[in-house]
Amino acid sequence: MNLRPLGDRVVIKKIEAEETTKSGIVLPGSAKEKPQMAEVIAVGPGGYVDGKEVKMEVKVGDKVIFSKYAGNEVKIDGVEYTILRQDDILAIVEE
Amino acid sequence: MNLRPLGDRVVIKKIEAEETTKSGIVLPGSAKEKPQMAEVIAVGPGGYVDGKEVKMEVKVGDKVIFSKYAGNEVKIDGVEYTILRQDDILAIVEE
Amino acid sequence: MNLRPLGDRVVIKKIEAEETTKSGIVLPGSAKEKPQMAEVIAVGPGGYVDGKEVKMEVKVGDKVIFSKYAGNEVKIDGVEYTILRQDDILAIVEE
Amino acid sequence: MNLRPLGDRVVIKKIEAEETTKSGIVLPGSAKEKPQMAEVIAVGPGGYVDGKEVKMEVKVGDKVIFSKYAGNEVKIDGVEYTILRQDDILAIVEE
Amino acid sequence: MNLRPLGDRVVIKKIEAEETTKSGIVLPGSAKEKPQMAEVIAVGPGGYVDGKEVKMEVKVGDKVIFSKYAGNEVKIDGVEYTILRQDDILAIVEE
Amino acid sequence: MNLRPLGDRVVIKKIEAEETTKSGIVLPGSAKEKPQMAEVIAVGPGGYVDGKEVKMEVKVGDKVIFSKYAGNEVKIDGVEYTILRQDDILAIVEE
Amino acid sequence: MNLRPLGDRVVIKKIEAEETTKSGIVLPGSAKEKPQMAEVIAVGPGGYVDGKEVKMEVKVGDKVIFSKYAGNEVKIDGVEYTILRQDDILAIVEE
Repeated sequence: MNLRPLGDRVVIKKIEAEETTKSGIVLPGSAKEKPQMAEVIAVGPGGYVDGKEVKMEVKVGDKVIFSKYAGNEVKIDGVEYTILRQDDILAIVEE
Repeated sequence: MNLRPLGDRVVIKKIEAEETTKSGIVLPGSAKEKPQMAEVIAVGPGGYVDGKEVKMEVKVGDKVIFSKYAGNEVKIDGVEYTILRQDDILAIVEE
Repeated sequence: MNLRPLGDRVVIKKIEAEETTKSGIVLPGSAKEKPQMAEVIAVGPGGYVDGKEVKMEVKVGDKVIFSKYAGNEVKIDGVEYTILRQDDILAIVEE
Repeated sequence: MNLRPLGDRVVIKKIEAEETTKSGIVLPGSAKEKPQMAEVIAVGPGGYVDGKEVKMEVKVGDKVIFSKYAGNEVKIDGVEYTILRQDDILAIVEE
Repeated sequence: MNLRPLGDRVVIKKIEAEETTKSGIVLPGSAKEKPQMAEVIAVGPGGYVDGKEVKMEVKVGDKVIFSKYAGNEVKIDGVEYTILRQDDILAIVEE
Repeated sequence: MNLRPLGDRVVIKKIEAEETTKSGIVLPGSAKEKPQMAEVIAVGPGGYVDGKEVKMEVKVGDKVIFSKYAGNEVKIDGVEYTILRQDDILAIVEE
Repeated sequence: MNLRPLGDRVVIKKIEAEETTKSGIVLPGSAKEKPQMAEVIAVGPGGYVDGKEVKMEVKVGDKVIFSKYAGNEVKIDGVEYTILRQDDILAIVEE
């Protein structure tokens, strides 16, 4: 992996809605305007972001729920990633 | 339960409007744009959120009134949950 | 009463416009977009709300004037209450 | 007078545009979107309002110029008052 | 002069566009959406305004350039004044 | 020059797009919504502006790139100047 | 290079979408509303920007992903550059 996010940003890779996680969460593909599940691929250093201290709470490999329309998408080696702020991550899915 | 909310976020499960709580609160199903009642399922750690200290005041099992359109909905094992910020919770219903 | 408001929120019960208070204030029922009078039913703990210190200045039983469209309405045991932030209360009516 | 404004709020009573003050200020009744003159009826305690210190600079009896559309109107014993924040008062008219 | 502005507010009197100042500045009467020149008539005390320290940098008699649509207009003894915040004054014209 | 900008404001004079600077920058006259080049004519004192410390980084004579629609225009002795905040200056052009 | 960005601004030069970086990232030319890749050409000093401390995390030569519509474009010696705030840079591409 070769994207190093800045500040409080996080790189995630969406998990297809059809996939079923160990914990049994299923997000149907037709769901609209609902948060999605993703895997954390890279985590920014946090620190002082916009003058406010941000401590990173997610780590690489975490499964997370995030706001569907948050962040920016970028394609790397044919794979789509999303770069968003940690604050757009709603929860960590524990298995 | 396997969702661990970040920061000041809280996972709640709506209580159907037709249900009657011990305290006798009834929120009619046809009510529009009114707050709803829910049970707290998981509570984030609070701490410094967006540079401001947030102390969590709700705990798992609390019955709460929240702004109907606040937060994001997510389906887990076929059950709908809402993930919102504690600030979108208006009051705790005491029984 | 079994609603415990969070932070700087206050639960109030509107006083019908047709009612006349001891202090002689009358708010005609046809008045539009004007503040209304209400009685304070429950008061949140205040403290640090959104990172700013809020000291509660109203207490249960106070008659208050508030912005008509502020807050959220909720029905408890058939009675309508409004949950709003203390900052949406304009003044206390002293008798 | 029986309205006790909260925080940095001030209760004022508009002075009719046709009135002429000792200082000779006349605000024609047809003036639109212009500030108006009023007399201060009650003054909030100030203190920390929305996390910022506010020191009250006006006192009961002051004649003030204020933004016409600022604040909320309320009728007490048949008389219309306006409740606004001190920051919506532009200047004190000295006689 | 009998207007005492509050906080960081300043009372100014517009200088007609046709006037020529000693420094030779001419602001044509037909200019639209451009700043205008005015004379400072009264200056507020500054201090903590909206929780931020404001030090007054203009004084009575200063010629200033200000944003044309800033502030509120008020007529005193038949003369139009503008009450605006010091921050809406762009520059002092030195002669 | 007789304009003394307040706070973090800067007076600049646009350099015509047709001009070629020593460093070879050319900004075509037909360019739309693009930043422009200008010369710094006067610099405010900085200090605490809107409660935040601003240190002036530009000096009289600097060639700067600025956001085309930032600031206010004012005509002095027939010459058009722009008064803007330092934050609307994007970069200094070094020769 | 002769642009010295102010504060937390950064000068970047877009890398054409058709280019393939060593790390194999390809951003197709037809991509819309997606972040783009660029090379950092000049970096501002950071420091206190708008009253908040900003520490620069990118350096000249870095390959970065940035929000496509962020910043201002400027043409220097026939080459197009973009001047944006560091906060509009999403991630550094490591090779």
